[in-house]
Amino acid sequence: MNLILLESQEIGADGVARVEGERARHITTVLKSAPGATIRVGCIGGGRGTATVDAVSLERVDLRCVIAAGDARRPPIDLLLALPRPKVMRRLWAQIAAMGVGQIILTNAERVERNYFDTHVIAADCYRPLLIEGLQQAADTYLPNVSIHRQLKVLVEDHLEALTGESQRLIAHPGAAETVSDAVCRTAHTAVLLAIGPEGGWNAFERDLLGRHGFAPVAMGPRTLRSDTATIALLTLAHDGFARRNSRYSYPHA
Amino acid sequence: MNLILLESQEIGADGVARVEGERARHITTVLKSAPGATIRVGCIGGGRGTATVDAVSLERVDLRCVIAAGDARRPPIDLLLALPRPKVMRRLWAQIAAMGVGQIILTNAERVERNYFDTHVIAADCYRPLLIEGLQQAADTYLPNVSIHRQLKVLVEDHLEALTGESQRLIAHPGAAETVSDAVCRTAHTAVLLAIGPEGGWNAFERDLLGRHGFAPVAMGPRTLRSDTATIALLTLAHDGFARRNSRYSYPHA
Repeated sequence: MNLILLESQEIGADGVARVEGERARHITTVLKSAPGATIRVGCIGGGRGTATVDAVSLERVDLRCVIAAGDARRPPIDLLLALPRPKVMRRLWAQIAAMGVGQIILTNAERVERNYFDTHVIAADCYRPLLIEGLQQAADTYLPNVSIHRQLKVLVEDHLEALTGESQRLIAHPGAAETVSDAVCRTAHTAVLLAIGPEGGWNAFERDLLGRHGFAPVAMGPRTLRSDTATIALLTLAHDGFARRNSRYSYPHA
Repeated sequence: MNLILLESQEIGADGVARVEGERARHITTVLKSAPGATIRVGCIGGGRGTATVDAVSLERVDLRCVIAAGDARRPPIDLLLALPRPKVMRRLWAQIAAMGVGQIILTNAERVERNYFDTHVIAADCYRPLLIEGLQQAADTYLPNVSIHRQLKVLVEDHLEALTGESQRLIAHPGAAETVSDAVCRTAHTAVLLAIGPEGGWNAFERDLLGRHGFAPVAMGPRTLRSDTATIALLTLAHDGFARRNSRYSYPHA
């Protein structure tokens, strides 16, 4: 944890937060913070700051927090991801949050097995702690929005515009001419929506549907990667594209 | 599996290979190949080609192979990686092989826990099948060379040059000015050696040692990533740098 994250309701009007469980153990056994020590903290969805350790017991730590006001900055990259198999998705939550995304839109597709949607791994009480774990690793406070859609056609035709607003729509596609980094680097859009298909790829209908709704193909390189590896690689290149366009680009903070 | 890989000694003088276990199950139950069907195969360290399915039983498949002669092409990226914790390293083997690297050099560092070196995860009988799994995913045949070093100083001073030859040496470092992609894009080196430190970073002595031996710092972005996420991100950017330099750059094949 490079930042201890607190829920806003954990922080009292006097700025004192009491943390227990894993965060308390991390403060006492990894950071080895004694009373009086200062640690980095952040408020989920809000600002970052520091906290003075007030009282410490084995399972509980009181923190006196000074956290900047204002909302967390939203990364300019949204992800439209065909739901990977549960074992892979479970691993991905923290990694996606650590990479920095504004929104995670999970969708069905022909080559997504139906029973993937019945698993606990897409329940908020499973993924929310994993997203927070990734944010604490990356020292970010912006909790990505998550939505889950069982019909790609309904999602694309009826909901996608309201979800993402105006953004550059890209679809990872083997053999495309341009890389994600180059595509993001050259456009004037302030945000990108990146579509990543299932292990077996989108089918022809799905590719056509996405194409008709503005998704331009971008290359993934010659190697076929597993969903999780591909997602990290494509997010890396999208962030790199923004950084090439603006040398001061930086998330979560300059 | 996007390519069924065979050991050279599995292929008889008549071109027939008998496969059992996981590969046989993949051919019969995932590819659903019946006798007479053609599938993509490769020889570890060698060429790629096709095979005609000759005979099929539940646990055994005979393949009549036609594989191009010659050696596998070595990707131009070597990795010098401070050994991550075993759970992370186990996950990384297949992903690194799928991304494409020539060589994986694992090293000790102050912030690597000593007992990581006692684990099965760095034994060849553990990692070799995982590397092959990654190659089968990416349809590559080049098996990365692996070496394990318990003393960074001895490795850097006495062995690194013989291991990697002449290459561009880069060290991932938060706050560096240049990105990996830009650094790889602008130099004339034909290969890159990318150093990635432990979770807690290299210590001052280690950074100095690597700096004196030609490792130039490259940026990792503002976010602190877990070892495995950082490794995939940096390999992605290194490959992207080669691709930006040469639009025909492509591994494993054009």
